[in-house]
Amino acid sequence: MKHENVMNVAKKRGFLWSSFEIYSGVSGFVDYGPLGAILKNNVMEKWRDYYIVGEGFYEIESPTIMPEEALKASGHVDHFTDPMTECKECLDVYRADHILKAATGQEVEGLENQKLTEIISEKQIRCPKCGGHLTHVWSYNLMFQTLIGAKGKKTGYMRPETAQGIFIPFKRLLRFFRNKLPFGVVQLGKAYRNEISPRQGVIRLREFTQAEAEIFINPADKSHPQFSQISSEILSLYSSDCQLNSKDPLQITTQEALDKDIVSSQMLIYQLHIAQKFLREIGIPDKALRFRQHLPTEMAHYAIDCWDVEVHTDNYGWVEIIGIADRTDYDLKSHSEHSGEDLRVFIEYPEPKKVKKIVVKPNMAKFGPAFKGAAPQIIKFLESADSNQIQHALQDEGRFSVKLDSTYHILPEHVKFEEVDEVVRGEKIFPHVIEPSFGIDRIVYSILLHSFKEEKDRSYFKLAKDIAPVKVSVFPLLNKEEMKEMAQDIQFNLRKNGFIAEYDSSGTIGRRYARADEIGVPFAITVDHDSLNDKTVTIRNRDDSEQFRIPSEKVPKIILSLLKSKIEFKDLKKP
Amino acid sequence: MKHENVMNVAKKRGFLWSSFEIYSGVSGFVDYGPLGAILKNNVMEKWRDYYIVGEGFYEIESPTIMPEEALKASGHVDHFTDPMTECKECLDVYRADHILKAATGQEVEGLENQKLTEIISEKQIRCPKCGGHLTHVWSYNLMFQTLIGAKGKKTGYMRPETAQGIFIPFKRLLRFFRNKLPFGVVQLGKAYRNEISPRQGVIRLREFTQAEAEIFINPADKSHPQFSQISSEILSLYSSDCQLNSKDPLQITTQEALDKDIVSSQMLIYQLHIAQKFLREIGIPDKALRFRQHLPTEMAHYAIDCWDVEVHTDNYGWVEIIGIADRTDYDLKSHSEHSGEDLRVFIEYPEPKKVKKIVVKPNMAKFGPAFKGAAPQIIKFLESADSNQIQHALQDEGRFSVKLDSTYHILPEHVKFEEVDEVVRGEKIFPHVIEPSFGIDRIVYSILLHSFKEEKDRSYFKLAKDIAPVKVSVFPLLNKEEMKEMAQDIQFNLRKNGFIAEYDSSGTIGRRYARADEIGVPFAITVDHDSLNDKTVTIRNRDDSEQFRIPSEKVPKIILSLLKSKIEFKDLKKP
Repeated sequence: MKHENVMNVAKKRGFLWSSFEIYSGVSGFVDYGPLGAILKNNVMEKWRDYYIVGEGFYEIESPTIMPEEALKASGHVDHFTDPMTECKECLDVYRADHILKAATGQEVEGLENQKLTEIISEKQIRCPKCGGHLTHVWSYNLMFQTLIGAKGKKTGYMRPETAQGIFIPFKRLLRFFRNKLPFGVVQLGKAYRNEISPRQGVIRLREFTQAEAEIFINPADKSHPQFSQISSEILSLYSSDCQLNSKDPLQITTQEALDKDIVSSQMLIYQLHIAQKFLREIGIPDKALRFRQHLPTEMAHYAIDCWDVEVHTDNYGWVEIIGIADRTDYDLKSHSEHSGEDLRVFIEYPEPKKVKKIVVKPNMAKFGPAFKGAAPQIIKFLESADSNQIQHALQDEGRFSVKLDSTYHILPEHVKFEEVDEVVRGEKIFPHVIEPSFGIDRIVYSILLHSFKEEKDRSYFKLAKDIAPVKVSVFPLLNKEEMKEMAQDIQFNLRKNGFIAEYDSSGTIGRRYARADEIGVPFAITVDHDSLNDKTVTIRNRDDSEQFRIPSEKVPKIILSLLKSKIEFKDLKKP
Repeated sequence: MKHENVMNVAKKRGFLWSSFEIYSGVSGFVDYGPLGAILKNNVMEKWRDYYIVGEGFYEIESPTIMPEEALKASGHVDHFTDPMTECKECLDVYRADHILKAATGQEVEGLENQKLTEIISEKQIRCPKCGGHLTHVWSYNLMFQTLIGAKGKKTGYMRPETAQGIFIPFKRLLRFFRNKLPFGVVQLGKAYRNEISPRQGVIRLREFTQAEAEIFINPADKSHPQFSQISSEILSLYSSDCQLNSKDPLQITTQEALDKDIVSSQMLIYQLHIAQKFLREIGIPDKALRFRQHLPTEMAHYAIDCWDVEVHTDNYGWVEIIGIADRTDYDLKSHSEHSGEDLRVFIEYPEPKKVKKIVVKPNMAKFGPAFKGAAPQIIKFLESADSNQIQHALQDEGRFSVKLDSTYHILPEHVKFEEVDEVVRGEKIFPHVIEPSFGIDRIVYSILLHSFKEEKDRSYFKLAKDIAPVKVSVFPLLNKEEMKEMAQDIQFNLRKNGFIAEYDSSGTIGRRYARADEIGVPFAITVDHDSLNDKTVTIRNRDDSEQFRIPSEKVPKIILSLLKSKIEFKDLKKP
């Protein structure tokens, strides 16, 4: 099976392997080896190119440990849970929904714990290992918990997503963007899920890397300024309608998808488009991709519209690698409520509006004598108070109490109400948030899977040139001192120019090409007899094994042009 | 004070601020804002340039959560502790060594808990807050603890350093480097210390970023192949001798430092040199730096030689920002012992050695009749057994027992011993490790501190061009549609070429220059009246406010040349 072959080569050649192997391993953790770490970094750098340089978003970095209050506000303390059950005999634990689905084929996602317990009892589901009875189903929180500090021992959690770290300092971010919407802020970093018992390798990690963008927009304007440029791009949309009616995904332009109300906004569909462009560029073919809309039953309660970008895998079927959601104002509102900080944005009206307003004024004939020296401060208070509230209090209770240094009771005779015209420049609103959320580990896995080629005489990762970890291999054709020296000079020169270049002199040249191909090195340079005389070398293209001679001093420049796609490999033979 | 001014601007303009402010903050955590995150990333990319591209090391990425066994082996479970004491009255907690030093001026680092308790009692040290009595001193482990998984609840910790993640998969790394020393592996990522009560801002974080390199070398050869190129470089070495004898740091060449045995090896001093070069390039002046050797009393028990790179700060005095140590074979040996895996490296001798060896052979006349059908398998066992051990057993106990399918007793008459010559190609050894360990957060702080300039009419971060977060600001001189359009086109074009460029049209041009200077933008482009006619624009240099006119279409190319130091700003005026 392809998956196994890919993972074997990946482990053997230093892309990735299970962590803590010498301590018998801990499931849900992987190490990126020497090649995997560069590959992953290259993917993240490419992501930054798209979102920071391209879209003009800014990156921030917030802590991975978060205090309980913040995650209480985000809903994770109460709702970031999986339903769990335990075998009363062997004490093994299971996800209740998984065990039910495996036993009955029934989709039970989203059901309450009590309902799950009932089904287990009705259908007499038993422990798959020992046949023992299962306990009632309870909610298991998926956050890693810890304690911060020595004093008081504040509860903290490893963050379940990078997004929350962007919402919390929203006021500072808003100020950075000079109080104007829309703006985008991204974060790349670790997130954590303490899975009950992960068994899907790099697809279900307990510690994983996310790249998330939070795009803050005016809820009244979800357009995208560049939409017209992508309005005829085609996406493969597996809408909730397609899913519910067992239809194939739609091949449809972004414009049509909006016209037919399949996707909820320009800003959202623009994000689908960028995601597709990004995945294409890092080597995941369109045919292995689809955009699956969340069914109304599976969508988070705060989201308006949510799409998963899914990639096809032979081992795990369709796997979500990116989620793109309209999170509305849920997070900012919730952090506002829990923290008491006003996280709204002032939106100026195109034209100031005149509105009628009731204001309260002192009736000085009565007011002065009643409050004497305190009168000025009470007037000041009334000016900033809500006139309607005062009017209601006077009507309903016959008085309105003002607490200052002491309490003053305002009676109807003390004040009068007037209607005035007020000019209002705008209003405060909670922005909505469009969020593309990328699972970097799953994307790296998808790249390895979909770039792996098995040909009759070689197998190799056909990695896109600009994300391949090693860019060039340099070989002396024979084990001769002069050739070795010249090859090492070329390698040194390439490194000095910023390219990761490897030197290899062991084994036959065919064996060395195969080794370089296997790890996806796009180009190989070979120093041979002629090189010593005419200072030319052979350059070989991984993808078609084609070779040309080029001047050795031009190697770094030619490699740069090839990597930046300024020239095609086949152009090299031209004089 | 400079520190306060720097931190105020840093917070106001989006470099960094305390995390979780809206939840009243949690000390020991910071957010890197939109400019701080890019600055930090630029520093890390520069670090990669030095160590990965330059030195040829490879990066890996291992989990931040580690199982207890691994950290038991590394010594952190037992020894990564601070001495703590608590006030019996107000229940506040303190680091016992800090409270003692503050009260008595006495340096008590490294003393046992019992000794600290005695001093507290003798000197009648009380709670600095309420004057209450203090408890006995105990060891507080600085690792954040958590539980992994739902079943069995395996104890885990947030890693206290990135280094351990490199030692654990050493066998895989050794294979990647084809079983040859020396090689270097680096890791950049989060590490954690659950400080008792951190009060030093970004200098003492509970979550921080390290960049560590582990260089695995043959203990018999700690040379560096490029040492000759740096042998006359001068370092400011504050050796343990200087410290103990109250002398100023030595200004000394690397060669002399080795000749005088001040630094223990070429490989180690080469690392000091790289660190200095790196710090210089990111803008920390030599005069603010010193290399301080650990005193014999403060050095970790497993280290042979250890140097801190310290930077001078007005607020915290000399602060360690990099540690460079010879960790010997401590870690690999310890992980070998705890895991049962052989983490040694086979080192081939320059010439194979002939050694005399005793081998045991069956005396067939007696052996065959004694063991009959079992004879062949017993012979096979003896061939791989330790002949000396057998010889001793026969001498001491009169027999040697072999347990196979059943137990066979070998008597002296069954075997004979012969001395043979054996050719030995090499031996297995534990490599030594030289480790440069960079504290990235402290380095970012040092950059901000030492680049901050307060002039009579402006204050700004004079950030090195290639790590400045924003490279170019683009301004329309006046608020006119044509100028704004042209300026935005230039910004767009710069971004398309991969530069982070900002557009700003609000306020006077002087105000805008000041805003750009403040955050360290090295270059500003201004579109004015002439620009609309002749398509030239003004380019302004942050550092000296000098300005020249250049063709607008050449902006990206000129910016690139300036950033790469291919041209100097003053060269621009040349035709």
